[in-house]
Amino acid sequence: MKIISEVFSFGGKQLVCNHKSVVNDCEMTFAVFIPPKIKKPPVLWYLSGLTCSHQNVMEKGEYRKKAAELGMVIICPDTSPRGDNVPDEKENWQFGSGAGFYIDATEPPYNKNYNMYSYIVEELPSVVQNNFDFDMSRQSIFGHSMGGHGALVVALRNPKKFKSCSAFAPIVEPTTASWSCEAFKKYIGLNHSDWQIYDSVALVKNGYYFPEILVDQGGSDSFLEEGLRPWLLEDACKKSKIKLKLRIQDNYDHSYYFISTFMSDHLIWHRDRI
Amino acid sequence: MKIISEVFSFGGKQLVCNHKSVVNDCEMTFAVFIPPKIKKPPVLWYLSGLTCSHQNVMEKGEYRKKAAELGMVIICPDTSPRGDNVPDEKENWQFGSGAGFYIDATEPPYNKNYNMYSYIVEELPSVVQNNFDFDMSRQSIFGHSMGGHGALVVALRNPKKFKSCSAFAPIVEPTTASWSCEAFKKYIGLNHSDWQIYDSVALVKNGYYFPEILVDQGGSDSFLEEGLRPWLLEDACKKSKIKLKLRIQDNYDHSYYFISTFMSDHLIWHRDRI
Repeated sequence: MKIISEVFSFGGKQLVCNHKSVVNDCEMTFAVFIPPKIKKPPVLWYLSGLTCSHQNVMEKGEYRKKAAELGMVIICPDTSPRGDNVPDEKENWQFGSGAGFYIDATEPPYNKNYNMYSYIVEELPSVVQNNFDFDMSRQSIFGHSMGGHGALVVALRNPKKFKSCSAFAPIVEPTTASWSCEAFKKYIGLNHSDWQIYDSVALVKNGYYFPEILVDQGGSDSFLEEGLRPWLLEDACKKSKIKLKLRIQDNYDHSYYFISTFMSDHLIWHRDRI
Repeated sequence: MKIISEVFSFGGKQLVCNHKSVVNDCEMTFAVFIPPKIKKPPVLWYLSGLTCSHQNVMEKGEYRKKAAELGMVIICPDTSPRGDNVPDEKENWQFGSGAGFYIDATEPPYNKNYNMYSYIVEELPSVVQNNFDFDMSRQSIFGHSMGGHGALVVALRNPKKFKSCSAFAPIVEPTTASWSCEAFKKYIGLNHSDWQIYDSVALVKNGYYFPEILVDQGGSDSFLEEGLRPWLLEDACKKSKIKLKLRIQDNYDHSYYFISTFMSDHLIWHRDRI
């Protein structure tokens, strides 16, 4: 792993690092904010949405002030493998670069590189453990949109590994959203039963459990009906023992102007549980 | 004036507007944050640095949370005229687009468009007054780098118009900094006596007065010696009655990671004086 840049901010350090990923078979870049004055800080993972890299939330998410106060590391991975040797559809913002959907692809040629689920759950935590002195026994996860989907799926499938979970405007049922279906087909084929382990609503319906989940959703989000549909997760959680705290935030859209507004609430949510 | 975009954030509204500027003879764009729940809020102007537009601070400045709390409008103008009909040197980041230096140019062909001093002091406040219900009797100004220079010069020359002034890493003596000399030559010619009204150190030495100025300067700023040199302003203020609060912030650089860290301090500084 190499540190590409290191900048002081809010008393802590904002790093950008890269490393050779084995599971994605390419160089991967991620951002790490290290809070000041705390030994072995806990780690909160932020998964970003479609078209984003590690950089968008690092620049626009406004997490450093509160993370510095609360003493939490924030790690922001990229959203897909990238590079000249990674198969891609440059014109398609819902597939390929910037659209890994936190899935392990099974279909060629994508299965060689698009293994973002294993990358987030296994490989990157291992890289981080080997290179930083963080408390990896205290990890939590959150994300936005496609990354909200990723955070929900990763938490539901790994409830012992992650102490808490939250999401901004997550795609809660990607297997039926027009946004994500085409990508799922290409990454994992036509057998819909293979899709269910990457769908938070399906996971909840199938008995996967996480004690509490916080979801903030902008009431004026233009993707609400088409891709997000938080009410599907609400219905599924009502029939399970999962306590979902779903907040519809009137007038807010899908952007970082929305995310940054509620960022502190999410950091406090995780600090109280991590 | 047209509102190009309007987004909810921290309970307020982040707008981007454009209008036909008479003094710059082109379309100009600016950002306005309107805080919630306050009638006739005061107005704080933020002038950006070289290469920036209205957008950089809007995305990375982290001003909305505190401005919403304090009930202050934040207006972020562009840093130069722009457009196909505006003379420019595309390859030169220290002149032309993104580098107006808050000067009224006198040299052709630049004097037709590059009139950022009059734009900031007269024209844009008038556009704002005609289109928003803000308290224009309460205005303050701050900025970063080239925009720190702009804020200092504008405040020193208009101490009745602006209630308070502060800067992040300002170019305090642009008439002698290698960063800015070439631009000054092209905008206002070779007569150095014409330059002095756009140089905060020269203004202070020549008796211009502003009661108090806050300056934050990153101690690890790579432009410290070459372009910024806050000690020149410190020396000049010591010999005047201006109270300069100069804070060298160890380890911080010249970026928005530095600015955002101290943004709240500056907003409180202005709230206490506006």
